This record gives sequence, structure tokens and C-alpha cells, in this order.
Amino acid sequence: MSTEPLFLRACFGQPTERTPIWLMRQAGRYMAEYRAVRKGVDFWTLCQTPELACEVTLQPIEAFGLDASIVFSDLLTPLPPMGCPVHFGKGHGPVVENHVEKASDVDRLRDFDVREALGYVGDAIELIVKALPAHVPLIGFAGAPFTLASYLIEGGSSRQFMKTKVFLHQEPEAADRLFTRLADVVIELLNLQIDAGCRAVQIFDSWAGCLDPDDYARWGLAYTKRIVEGVRRPGVPVIVFAKGTGTYLDLVAQCGADVIGVDWTLRLDRARQLVGPDVALQGNLDPARLLGTWDTIRPAVDRVLDDAGDGRGHIFNLGHGINKDTPVDNVRRLIEYVQSTSGDRRR
Amino acid sequence: MSTEPLFLRACFGQPTERTPIWLMRQAGRYMAEYRAVRKGVDFWTLCQTPELACEVTLQPIEAFGLDASIVFSDLLTPLPPMGCPVHFGKGHGPVVENHVEKASDVDRLRDFDVREALGYVGDAIELIVKALPAHVPLIGFAGAPFTLASYLIEGGSSRQFMKTKVFLHQEPEAADRLFTRLADVVIELLNLQIDAGCRAVQIFDSWAGCLDPDDYARWGLAYTKRIVEGVRRPGVPVIVFAKGTGTYLDLVAQCGADVIGVDWTLRLDRARQLVGPDVALQGNLDPARLLGTWDTIRPAVDRVLDDAGDGRGHIFNLGHGINKDTPVDNVRRLIEYVQSTSGDRRR
Repeated sequence: MSTEPLFLRACFGQPTERTPIWLMRQAGRYMAEYRAVRKGVDFWTLCQTPELACEVTLQPIEAFGLDASIVFSDLLTPLPPMGCPVHFGKGHGPVVENHVEKASDVDRLRDFDVREALGYVGDAIELIVKALPAHVPLIGFAGAPFTLASYLIEGGSSRQFMKTKVFLHQEPEAADRLFTRLADVVIELLNLQIDAGCRAVQIFDSWAGCLDPDDYARWGLAYTKRIVEGVRRPGVPVIVFAKGTGTYLDLVAQCGADVIGVDWTLRLDRARQLVGPDVALQGNLDPARLLGTWDTIRPAVDRVLDDAGDGRGHIFNLGHGINKDTPVDNVRRLIEYVQSTSGDRRR
Repeated sequence: MSTEPLFLRACFGQPTERTPIWLMRQAGRYMAEYRAVRKGVDFWTLCQTPELACEVTLQPIEAFGLDASIVFSDLLTPLPPMGCPVHFGKGHGPVVENHVEKASDVDRLRDFDVREALGYVGDAIELIVKALPAHVPLIGFAGAPFTLASYLIEGGSSRQFMKTKVFLHQEPEAADRLFTRLADVVIELLNLQIDAGCRAVQIFDSWAGCLDPDDYARWGLAYTKRIVEGVRRPGVPVIVFAKGTGTYLDLVAQCGADVIGVDWTLRLDRARQLVGPDVALQGNLDPARLLGTWDTIRPAVDRVLDDAGDGRGHIFNLGHGINKDTPVDNVRRLIEYVQSTSGDRRR
């Protein structure tokens, strides 16, 4: 087999000796080591201090021997330099200042130099890449325009995304200007991350699942495709994870990504039917499962591996970020189990 | 054609001259007439006073000429008589007192006489049925066990339903006792509504979409099927709406319902492929669409009607309750448009 890292080979659908595994939000509050660092600094300081971002990024790699690393950062890093500061309060989601309420608000958002304002992301990546084992590639990431716009328009988190959808339907021209600007920022941000040493990038469209298929085609797919085209480099896979879009995953796959993320509501065998044989799939254990006991976790893990067929073109992951209350021991067992048993399925 | 009401014929997949339409939460805050009644009384008083519940139930029928009526009530009516009072605060969802935190809490929930404690629902129905035009059947409803249990376990609304899922995985026996009791309460409540004059019933599993397919099979489908069997009467269709389950709608349809509700994330032609030819489909316009302008609403309505093919076995509805900020004029135009154009598609 090739000496190319397992994770990258899986992203390109190449043969692998076993299934690689990493976990969304793997550097996070479920780890005591993370909480110890986080106790001393606020969330933004952690994101913006390369040494600290590097430290927490490496924690799960050292603890569990995962097959890929993802830079510790946040989807909302582009908002403050656009003129919309973001505050993370306790017990609720982020609050976005100066949020977009009407069409003209789009035009007062500031243009900014991504490499200057978000240079700290690249600085963290350079430190992380130096420290990582050679077989563990680093993933960079950014939010898709719909998800970023939802924070800008709702002024924070939302359950129904009503303001965002109404804005799209009532102000399609302003929305297009906003989404195009966001797409261009994301392209620059992902290219910055690749230049700094990331060997793969993931685009998170965390809230796209609130859209009907026609709205997704117009407001999700179109801009995601633009981004995929704008960051394409030989050997650097692009992963697109649009949570909650399992009912039209074939549409999502039209973005041209190498890997499509799948949440736990769609079984991987069905996902494969929808996207065809030419893209890899990443997922899809329900993060809630990891809060149970191993005897309830194991059959659910087997189900994911079974649904991935021969395992070619499958990267094991959760269907959403790991929950802060997840017992570390379950994480360790999950990773050991996938790494030690998935190879047998290839024989 | 038969003189049986249009809505009932559509539920049974019989030929209809056009597509019937009603809207989930059609008696609600988007109507000035509703707000006028609601100004004087709190939400529970409105639910529990048959004359008032009757009055608001009839408001959308009188205003828009819908093809079915649904009794004004709430999914959470069974909780207070179980010993868990529910408060509806402003700006956030319901808060449930004495909620279930551990297995033994299930056994302290009170048994109660449904016909006594929830007799007010039947009283309202008797008033409504007398007042309704003969061609407008009244729908009764209740929440499915998973959705009711989620309120009992989370103590209110939730985004991730983490506590509920952890309870299911860690305490499956206690969860089974809870779900079985809830199913039996729901069976009694729906039978009470049919006895009082409802000609159809709908089971809402509003939050089932947070479950993976295996969890849905065990914790959604199994109890829903028990309920469908427990309320089955000749000529009284049973509708099951499990929001967010479009990725496994075939599993949902195994409950034996006559009609399966579909949210806006799954196109109706795909829904039909999943459930087969023998059940009717209800849905599936995104309620957010109704906050736009008619020129953006109309193509989305056409899409729903187009995806329903020849319209046989289709009941037009939204994919979730109507939003409180919906312009009344859009509601009126939607109903007129579906009622006046859907017949042409049959020729």
C-alpha cells in the first residue's frame, strides 16, 4: 500500500488497510486537558493564540491516536473582521453584534484582508504541522455561506432560521451579494490554511438542513460549489458536511467535493446509493450514542461499519460535533475498536 | 364522486376532484381573531375552556374555507395529570415541572383517568362538530410517546435531545415503561376524541427526527404502531407525522397509518417512492415560504403539487406548524390557489 496517510487515501477512495477515524470537535470540553487550558482564557483568546490553539489541537491526537487532526478554530472567525463582533455567552450560543436586518446592512459589512485579519489561523497551523506525526494530516475548515449568513441574519443561533429564510426570499439580490462575499472570504481562508500546511479542508454547512431542496440548490449548493472550485489543489481533498441534508444528499454531492459528510439520520448504504460510487463518505455515528455504555455503543458502531460495505471510501466520524458530556473512556474505546476491527472487514 | 368529505377520501387514497388543504396550527397567532381571544386568557385556559377552544378552532374555517379542521389543544395536555405541570413562558418553550431525571422517576408519574382529566378536549370537540359545516371533518390529535417523553425528560424544549437519548440508552427498561404508559394514554385520548366526533386523528412525533434509524425503529415506530392499532376504526383515518424522518420515511410508514406527513426537506415524489402506493401523503410546503411574497410562494406551491403527481392520495399542508408572523393574505391566497388549481391537474 501507499505511504500516503491513511486518511488522505480514504478521502480519495483509494484502497486502505482499515477505516480511518477522527471526530468532529475532537479538541473540546469533554477532555480534562482542554478544560484545563480553557479555564485560563476565554474562547476567542484560545482561538487567536497560536500556541494555545496548537496545544488543544494536539491533545486528542496524543490521547487517542486519531487518524486526522483538525485545527482548533471556530466557524465564526470571519464575522468580527466584517464588523460583526461575536460573543460566546455561557449556556447559550454565540451572539453576533451589528447583525444584518435589511438589504442595505449587507453593504455596510466591511471588506477585509483575510491573510491579515485571520493570519492567526495560519500561524496555529504552522505550529501544529511541525508537532504532528507525519502520518496524521491536519484538516483546515470554514463555514459555508448559508451557515455563516444564518448567524449574521439571526444575530446568533436559531432553531427555525425563519429570519434567514425570509431574507433569502424577500431580498434575493442582497442575499446573493452577501453569500458571494462570504464564499470569497471562505475561499481565501481555506487557501490560507492549505498554504500553511493543511492537507485537507472541510466546509461545514451546519444548518443547511433547514432548507427545502430548491432553496438548498440555490443558497447552499451554488456557493459551496464555488468554494470547492476555488480551493481545489492536487492531493488536497475537500470535504463538505451539510448537516441534515440526507433527504437530498445527491444534490449536496453535486458540489464536486471529494468527501461528503453524513449525519446519523441517513444510513451510509443509502447515502452511497444517493451520491454514487465516486465520492468518499464521512460519518455517521450519533454523538448521543457515545454517552451510553459500551454494550449499546458497539452495535451502533458495527452498524456504521456494516453500512459502509467494504469500507473503501469511508472515513469514520460522528454525525455532528462530540458532546461535552461524553465519557473519555468511550471515546478511547470507539477509536480502538474502529482501528482494530475495521481492517478485518476488508478480507 | 362520493359525498364523503374530500379530506377523508384523500386520506384513503380515493379519487378526489381536487387536492384538499388544511394547515398545521391553523388556529393560531398569525390571525388577529385568535390574538383577540388569547389576549384575555392564558394558553391553558384557552385549551381547557371548551367554548373558547371551539371559537378559535372555527376561526380559520370561517376565514379561509379550509377542507379540514383540527381541534385547538396542545400536545402536552397529558403531562399535568401525570404530575408534571407545564408552564408556557414568553419567548421560550414550555417548562415541565417534576421532570424525569432517573429511572425511578418514571414510577412516580401518576396514573390518571383520561376521560376525566382530559374530558375538556371531548367537550370542545362536541361543540366544534355541531358548528362545523358537514363537509369539513374535525381532526383530533395527540403527541407520540417519544415526543412527549422528550418534554418529560428534558424538562422542556431541546435542540439536541441529549438527555432523552441518554435516558433511552442507559435506562431502556424504565424508558419502555414510560413509553408504554404514554402510548396507552395517547390511545385513550385519541379514542375519546373519536367518540366525541372527530373523523380523523393525527399523531405528532415532532422531534423523532433527532433519532437514528435504529433508535427510531425501537423508540418511535414500535409505540406509534401500538397507538395506530389501538385507535383503528372503520372510516377514521390515522395520520402520522414524524417531523425530520425523511431519510427513513419507509420505516415510519410501517406503523400502519393511512396518511404519512412529510416535512419540506423531502420532495413528495421521493416520499412516494419510499412509502409505496398504499398510503396517502400530507405536506409539505416550508412554512417559512409563506412569509415571502406571492411570486416566491407560488412556484414552491406548484412544486408540491407537481411532486404529488396526479394528486391522488395527497393532502396539501405545511411541513410544520404555521409561523406566527405569516401574513394572513398569503394564507388566503395559498388556500384559494390550491383549491382552484389542483383540480386541473387531474385532467
